[in-house]
Amino acid sequence: MDALVRDLFAEICRIPLIDPHSHINPHRPASRTLDDILGYHYYTELAHSCGMDRACLAPEIDPRERVRAILAHMDRFDNTAQYAWFLEIARTFLDFQGERLTAADADHLWNAAESKMSRPDWENDVLRRSNIERVFLTNDFDDPLEGFDTSRYIPCLRTDDLVFHLDKPEVRRRLAQATGIEGSDTIELRKAIRKLFEHFTARGAKACAISLPPDFSPRPGTDPFWILAEHCREFQLPFDLMIGVNRRVYRAGVHQGQDLFDGRTSLIQYAELFNAFPEVTFCVSVLSSGQNQELAAYSWIFPNVVTNGHWWYSNVPAYIEGDLRARLQAVPKTKQIGYYSDMYKLEFGLPKFNMYRRLLARVLADDFVRPGILSETGALDLARCLLRDNVERIFRV
Amino acid sequence: MDALVRDLFAEICRIPLIDPHSHINPHRPASRTLDDILGYHYYTELAHSCGMDRACLAPEIDPRERVRAILAHMDRFDNTAQYAWFLEIARTFLDFQGERLTAADADHLWNAAESKMSRPDWENDVLRRSNIERVFLTNDFDDPLEGFDTSRYIPCLRTDDLVFHLDKPEVRRRLAQATGIEGSDTIELRKAIRKLFEHFTARGAKACAISLPPDFSPRPGTDPFWILAEHCREFQLPFDLMIGVNRRVYRAGVHQGQDLFDGRTSLIQYAELFNAFPEVTFCVSVLSSGQNQELAAYSWIFPNVVTNGHWWYSNVPAYIEGDLRARLQAVPKTKQIGYYSDMYKLEFGLPKFNMYRRLLARVLADDFVRPGILSETGALDLARCLLRDNVERIFRV
Amino acid sequence: MDALVRDLFAEICRIPLIDPHSHINPHRPASRTLDDILGYHYYTELAHSCGMDRACLAPEIDPRERVRAILAHMDRFDNTAQYAWFLEIARTFLDFQGERLTAADADHLWNAAESKMSRPDWENDVLRRSNIERVFLTNDFDDPLEGFDTSRYIPCLRTDDLVFHLDKPEVRRRLAQATGIEGSDTIELRKAIRKLFEHFTARGAKACAISLPPDFSPRPGTDPFWILAEHCREFQLPFDLMIGVNRRVYRAGVHQGQDLFDGRTSLIQYAELFNAFPEVTFCVSVLSSGQNQELAAYSWIFPNVVTNGHWWYSNVPAYIEGDLRARLQAVPKTKQIGYYSDMYKLEFGLPKFNMYRRLLARVLADDFVRPGILSETGALDLARCLLRDNVERIFRV
Repeated sequence: MDALVRDLFAEICRIPLIDPHSHINPHRPASRTLDDILGYHYYTELAHSCGMDRACLAPEIDPRERVRAILAHMDRFDNTAQYAWFLEIARTFLDFQGERLTAADADHLWNAAESKMSRPDWENDVLRRSNIERVFLTNDFDDPLEGFDTSRYIPCLRTDDLVFHLDKPEVRRRLAQATGIEGSDTIELRKAIRKLFEHFTARGAKACAISLPPDFSPRPGTDPFWILAEHCREFQLPFDLMIGVNRRVYRAGVHQGQDLFDGRTSLIQYAELFNAFPEVTFCVSVLSSGQNQELAAYSWIFPNVVTNGHWWYSNVPAYIEGDLRARLQAVPKTKQIGYYSDMYKLEFGLPKFNMYRRLLARVLADDFVRPGILSETGALDLARCLLRDNVERIFRV
Repeated sequence: MDALVRDLFAEICRIPLIDPHSHINPHRPASRTLDDILGYHYYTELAHSCGMDRACLAPEIDPRERVRAILAHMDRFDNTAQYAWFLEIARTFLDFQGERLTAADADHLWNAAESKMSRPDWENDVLRRSNIERVFLTNDFDDPLEGFDTSRYIPCLRTDDLVFHLDKPEVRRRLAQATGIEGSDTIELRKAIRKLFEHFTARGAKACAISLPPDFSPRPGTDPFWILAEHCREFQLPFDLMIGVNRRVYRAGVHQGQDLFDGRTSLIQYAELFNAFPEVTFCVSVLSSGQNQELAAYSWIFPNVVTNGHWWYSNVPAYIEGDLRARLQAVPKTKQIGYYSDMYKLEFGLPKFNMYRRLLARVLADDFVRPGILSETGALDLARCLLRDNVERIFRV
Repeated sequence: MDALVRDLFAEICRIPLIDPHSHINPHRPASRTLDDILGYHYYTELAHSCGMDRACLAPEIDPRERVRAILAHMDRFDNTAQYAWFLEIARTFLDFQGERLTAADADHLWNAAESKMSRPDWENDVLRRSNIERVFLTNDFDDPLEGFDTSRYIPCLRTDDLVFHLDKPEVRRRLAQATGIEGSDTIELRKAIRKLFEHFTARGAKACAISLPPDFSPRPGTDPFWILAEHCREFQLPFDLMIGVNRRVYRAGVHQGQDLFDGRTSLIQYAELFNAFPEVTFCVSVLSSGQNQELAAYSWIFPNVVTNGHWWYSNVPAYIEGDLRARLQAVPKTKQIGYYSDMYKLEFGLPKFNMYRRLLARVLADDFVRPGILSETGALDLARCLLRDNVERIFRV
């Protein structure tokens, strides 16, 4: 990292973050053990992919043994970005001093984690060192949203179940229980969805979100998806669309390690939606650089389409860098949400945002500061726009 | 920009250009006001995309107010490549000295534009400073092609109407009026198309061109597209295929700001065409890097397929650079048309070609000169091949 | 090339290679004339693509004249990666000292080739200078696999004919002759395939391989492809899948210069296969960067999916570099087969592997050593993993 990139990175790190998408459990936001860290599906799936038996992941297995098994496989995937996140966590939060992480570090790391994570200020400490002020959640539609600080952990209505699993009795039952509405016709469904939006917005929800398979194409009418969009309009909630994932592709995979994308999807499938709801801001995440090129074009044209972060299989430096460069050159800066963590535990905010912040610093240096397009100050203003201002404005935080 | 890139760029700028595709109106090629500049759809659509009401674009609005409105929104898209074009125009042609352009510059720029653009030598001056000698046009099939210098402004027969809108009475009427042929069967259509080719080639036309939706697949027979290809063969005109655009995707968008591409298109759809017309050179433009990879392969294999410029949503540095590198490594240099402006007003030739010339200088430096593959002189010969020689040879200018 | 990249490249060159995919004829592995070199389809197709008549390639043409014709067209494609391979061959093996290769070099090169290639140690010499120890072959199913050293030239069962051409009487006849099994029902086909696997594995075959069209999707049951996968499982052979090529797209093209890919293919088409055969390692090659992004995700998730080399139209530096960076950041290092030559003559191993080795050195320097992720030694261990260790382990060599 040369001096300019280093300086930009250091300054970007000073921008206080609002993380616009995560899977944090607000009742237990930080890790309590090393098992919470290495239980993140990236590690279980990578270890399994290079040979670890899924049996280690069974609940009855001693967590220390599970952690040891995952660490024992790390020398097979210590080239990956995900390994680098863990190394950064170990160094930043667990006082790890070594070069590489192996099974030999299992006990030491376990004990360090146990000791540090049990401190009462751990959650605050992690957030402070990551410079994250607020974190968006991903809440089931029947989440009571109680017992946590909704100004720090901002509710977000996740709606996959309502669109894709409404035929399941269990989902019907949960919906009836959450709303008191029993019927299954469109009129009753509308009433139930309205109840959910009322509940969520009353508890400070700032977004509605859904993940969508590659062949999905929303159609006007009585489809639950369309009804959700109507309620986003009425309740003035942005709608996060996470486009392109096929579920359960690798059926014998680990928990959350079974889904894959299909490059053959297009935002043209959403054209009618974008046309029909000019008042709704659609924050769109995609899974490939091919789709990112479409997204850059759609965000450049449609006032209500915004680029949103770097999602899942696209969330590695080689793809972030290209996708980010294109967005910065093609999409109005006010229409780009730079990054979200997608994390399940707070400790991942730091390495994931740092990965993005380093890449952002490099792209700003190479594409804007060095060619004389922006001063360093101007580049930092652009970074703040992506990482903070747009999140505040678009989600009305 | 390091010294080598700077030197290469300076020398590349000395290559006199023939711009092989534009939308210049030869009766009014240069801008007369700042409204002509900022009326370019890139600015109206970007301003609209980040919040400007379309109402400012109505013909009854005072052009000075329209310009002020667009400038007032520029701080929302001053990160984009298109903003950089305008800044370069303001600095090069309008004596702008500042760092950023804002609404506060509206009056000053308006007056500077008015004063400079009214000079009798403005058109020549712009062409000279851009180092552009000749410019291809995009002419409706019923353009009389009269009243301008066809050696400077080279006619090109645009055929979208004939292939996609021949069922419209207005198009039928225009065709009948242009050719004197009334009937609507295939025999009459052939006669009419022949008349058009005779008219265009008699007036110096050097290409036939069409833009095509992503799902189009030409089929042998009586389809107007196939008949056009037959006439390209007979009249020895290259056929510019601009592949992949869906029209009117964002229906409430600004004029020319409604169209978007779909990544899911393939040149295999054109395989029969390329096989059937070995004598016709197809100059192919595509809209995504995915399609560019196919195009590089097709141009490498098919003698009659040539890569053509960097079109529309692909015409931003991040995509040009990758697409250009691949073409330079994979496609015979004699089969690459480097760049065209696609401009509506001459003032855009300079910033758009400069964007390309800077990227070309960098790619030549990094991929050819520094690894010892080419000398600086050799690299400049390659640049001349792409920017000048191939245009002359392929279009017989 | 800066000092770090140069050092890494030099050290990477010291890793003795096993080339895991080629089209070498083990009875005549090295070239005997310059015609063998320039007869490689890359040169014939590039020369044809930029104007050379296919007639030069007819068997009755004097090979010296053919070579002269191809060389005479090289100044039209001397920008390409393929030209660079030939230049490296001429310099390394044929004592060429000049800057550019032209028709004027035809006699000199011809004579140099004739003299050098007739030396009895030529084959060994080429292998030694390329640092290649063993080379995988591509054998027709009815290859007797006799008369060559199968520890140096490792048999591989190529199965395209069995899956796509079994309806041709000639293929049926060859299968009957090779196996002694005549019938055409599934039971007989299974018996015949078992015979082939027995024959091949007895002769040291280490892989089964097939190239597949973009729309192919294997289905469980009696399809020959599925039966082949079952035998790969039983005989513990990895299955090389080369996905995405349409055959005979340019029907008037030169031999082996008629095939092209279609970007619209997805690994989801293989999901059932990957799920059904967890015991079979699938070494997957793809033809575009879009497909590479899918492949990186599939290899990261599926234990039995491995990335395999950089194939054909993807085998140019601009695409290798991006694809390689993504794999190194996303796929466990033990699941990546770095590169194969795909060569028909041994002389191409050196320039093709060198192209890869240079890119690998650069990516390791930029993405791993400079950011402090790996030491130089660690980077070289990673290179060895990709280029040697994984080939040995995955193919049980």
